[in-house]
Amino acid sequence: MKTARPITLHGKPIGDGAFPAIITPLVGATPEAIAGELAAIVPKKPDLIEWRIDFFEAIGDTGRVIDTARAIRAAASGIPVLLTRRNVTEGGQPIPIAEPQVVAMYGAACEARCVELIDYELSNAAADLAALREVSARCDVAMVMSYHNFQATPDAATLDAKFVEAQALEADVGKVAVMPQDPSDVLALLAATYRASQALSIPLISMSMGGIGSISRMIGWVYGSAATFAVGKSRSAPGQVAIDELRAVLATSRQAVQGR
Amino acid sequence: MKTARPITLHGKPIGDGAFPAIITPLVGATPEAIAGELAAIVPKKPDLIEWRIDFFEAIGDTGRVIDTARAIRAAASGIPVLLTRRNVTEGGQPIPIAEPQVVAMYGAACEARCVELIDYELSNAAADLAALREVSARCDVAMVMSYHNFQATPDAATLDAKFVEAQALEADVGKVAVMPQDPSDVLALLAATYRASQALSIPLISMSMGGIGSISRMIGWVYGSAATFAVGKSRSAPGQVAIDELRAVLATSRQAVQGR
Repeated sequence: MKTARPITLHGKPIGDGAFPAIITPLVGATPEAIAGELAAIVPKKPDLIEWRIDFFEAIGDTGRVIDTARAIRAAASGIPVLLTRRNVTEGGQPIPIAEPQVVAMYGAACEARCVELIDYELSNAAADLAALREVSARCDVAMVMSYHNFQATPDAATLDAKFVEAQALEADVGKVAVMPQDPSDVLALLAATYRASQALSIPLISMSMGGIGSISRMIGWVYGSAATFAVGKSRSAPGQVAIDELRAVLATSRQAVQGR
Repeated sequence: MKTARPITLHGKPIGDGAFPAIITPLVGATPEAIAGELAAIVPKKPDLIEWRIDFFEAIGDTGRVIDTARAIRAAASGIPVLLTRRNVTEGGQPIPIAEPQVVAMYGAACEARCVELIDYELSNAAADLAALREVSARCDVAMVMSYHNFQATPDAATLDAKFVEAQALEADVGKVAVMPQDPSDVLALLAATYRASQALSIPLISMSMGGIGSISRMIGWVYGSAATFAVGKSRSAPGQVAIDELRAVLATSRQAVQGR
């Protein structure tokens, strides 16, 4: 059994190597709403803050995006920031800009070095994935490549392939989030995560969503998931648990699993 | 997906239907040691107390067994008591009496109606299982039939067969506890529990033991395990978590799974 691989930035594990790291989303529509979320979230000390920019009303204004990212970073007290436009086809919000502008927005954010990580879906065009991998690598911004399925949990081969694809495309982190139809599907996601953690070399994030899937947010780290999303102020996906409660569950399970 | 089946006594679910019920073991060697454990455990209000009589120095003295069972019951404030002689071949303590005396001891405890449930391993002789099923049923004492493997997690067919066998032998509850070699084995135990919960009609208890297995004590209820063992004062198997911590984890996971 391989050792767990934390997410690293500039060669150092985030959250001082906390496994799993806790990621808390920002879903405000305006800089003011986001500032309010940060005021609630930052004192809870998540290991990573995800700015879900598909919720942001000015996503089409790159200048405002960069200014807001800088404001987030200033308020985040050193907590690294992950910039995510979640595609509407994978559970995100409808946005007023087309994909070339999304890619340009991500590229500008990398060039401005105003975030530490970006997330882009594996389902996007190969050329766009390659372009963002190039600019993010050049700017020393980490890149998460992700797959989301809000309808179902695909079969084992498909799950395995998503993790493999992320590594093949040189992602810094591979992420898979799927919806269970019954409790067995949660086991399928955990089993796939474990296989990937044994076979691949990049850090992984996975979760089964919704009510039943929420248990994967608590125990996924045992199967190699390096991070788990928790609610700071508002949830960004079904099944997310409040950060304080999740942290307590993680403390109990870590102690039990590690026999301390 | 079938609804969860709680353990019932005299037609009523234990723990007011708490799912999972929390079971706390007593492992004292003397009535005095047991009284000390009860003083620590009863205020924590487990749903069931398991008296592990293989730890009891006077297991060979049926009069003292029954007296002590009555004392336990008197101290238990209405919490039902499960009497368990765990066979040394399944992780129990060495005892000074042979199997016919064990069967006689269980029978006397049933006749005295000094406990609400007994646990007897599926690996015992068919005639002994049948004899204890007869006397327990006649005395309205519930019977758990159990399988433990402290070395490994058997294959899926073997796990399935243990649950099926318990129901075929008219157990009131079927219990399976196995040791994982890696995190995948925990998923195998949970998957088998889920299949059994969908296929059978009796309530089930299952757990994967040891450090990694401890997560099954927290989430097994999602897969149909009606009870989980927690430490009141001393643990009786590897991986058991303190009752207060386990209860907090269960509260968080129940709320998340049930979307409340």
